[in-house]
Amino acid sequence: MKQIEFWFDFASPYAYFAAPGIEDLAARHGRGVAWRPFLLGAVFEVTGMQTFDRSPLRGEYARHDWARLARRLDMPFVLPPDRPALTVAPGRAFLWLERERPDVAVAFARAVFDAYFATGLDIGSIAVTLDVAESCGVERMALEAALRSQELKDLFRSRTGEAVARGVFGSPFFFVDGEPFWGSDRLPMIDEWLARGGW
Amino acid sequence: MKQIEFWFDFASPYAYFAAPGIEDLAARHGRGVAWRPFLLGAVFEVTGMQTFDRSPLRGEYARHDWARLARRLDMPFVLPPDRPALTVAPGRAFLWLERERPDVAVAFARAVFDAYFATGLDIGSIAVTLDVAESCGVERMALEAALRSQELKDLFRSRTGEAVARGVFGSPFFFVDGEPFWGSDRLPMIDEWLARGGW
Repeated sequence: MKQIEFWFDFASPYAYFAAPGIEDLAARHGRGVAWRPFLLGAVFEVTGMQTFDRSPLRGEYARHDWARLARRLDMPFVLPPDRPALTVAPGRAFLWLERERPDVAVAFARAVFDAYFATGLDIGSIAVTLDVAESCGVERMALEAALRSQELKDLFRSRTGEAVARGVFGSPFFFVDGEPFWGSDRLPMIDEWLARGGW
Repeated sequence: MKQIEFWFDFASPYAYFAAPGIEDLAARHGRGVAWRPFLLGAVFEVTGMQTFDRSPLRGEYARHDWARLARRLDMPFVLPPDRPALTVAPGRAFLWLERERPDVAVAFARAVFDAYFATGLDIGSIAVTLDVAESCGVERMALEAALRSQELKDLFRSRTGEAVARGVFGSPFFFVDGEPFWGSDRLPMIDEWLARGGW
């Protein structure tokens, strides 16, 4: 099954809002979704961009927009107090789960989004990441040990490097058969792209 | 007839691509479109943002995306050599026409977009602005005199000030009954907003 790549930072509200939509869309087209967490902050160092929150005008719009999107999609949404969280711990955890527990990796990713945007927990903390993983049936001590391994640190860093190399400059960012699409607003266009086989 | 406000910079590719769409959408909902040119560069000074072109990764994506949107919408598109043009002259001209020749103001605005994005002319030049206006049936010397007036300069400057005051941080930017929407990708959501009467 050909996969739609879904690149995102776990602290990105627009990625949180896009996640159910891209899964629905992919399923309708007989596709899977490859979840690809990365560190948006590291990408911003390359592009000179910054988070919505810190930009005058844009920050106010974003907060209004997130509340509006939550109502539209009927999804819970809080503004987490620690924002944006540095999402190294859940990012590394996801990569480990993808290899060791592929049966729960995506459920874990969804649960991280919910912990942050529905409950407001600090997903940047290792303890919260372990709690979320445990709630998904992951063996806590094994993951805790893995999170300290140099190999996993390197793997997550190389993923963010891959994002930059492939031109990913925001979150969410999608690749459909190699074609790049930036932003949650592009879901209707991705739908059209798949239906028409491009244009 | 209630108007959808369409704020834009004449040098903004995404505004060029959105213009036919917002007019179609408004017409389907029994609305008019109030064209509101402003200077995006002045807004960027407030937000610390910059044009897509100048941002690594984002610039490459944008150029790919513009070509793709042009194919999708079947609209001509060239990358104008002078980019982004400083759109003071067409902005001022539009405001003058809106008052003196409301019958041709919007046709002029569309013709400016075409001069820039279909033909690649430097719309930042007063001569090109006058040529475009003349092609729309405007008396050239009257407009030329108006473009030198302090009143028109002040008026256009205050429009850009109004944009900032109302939170406009990009182009295109829409207000629908006071509700803000940023970006050409939001046309489907504006459609839904009007159909549902908000949410």
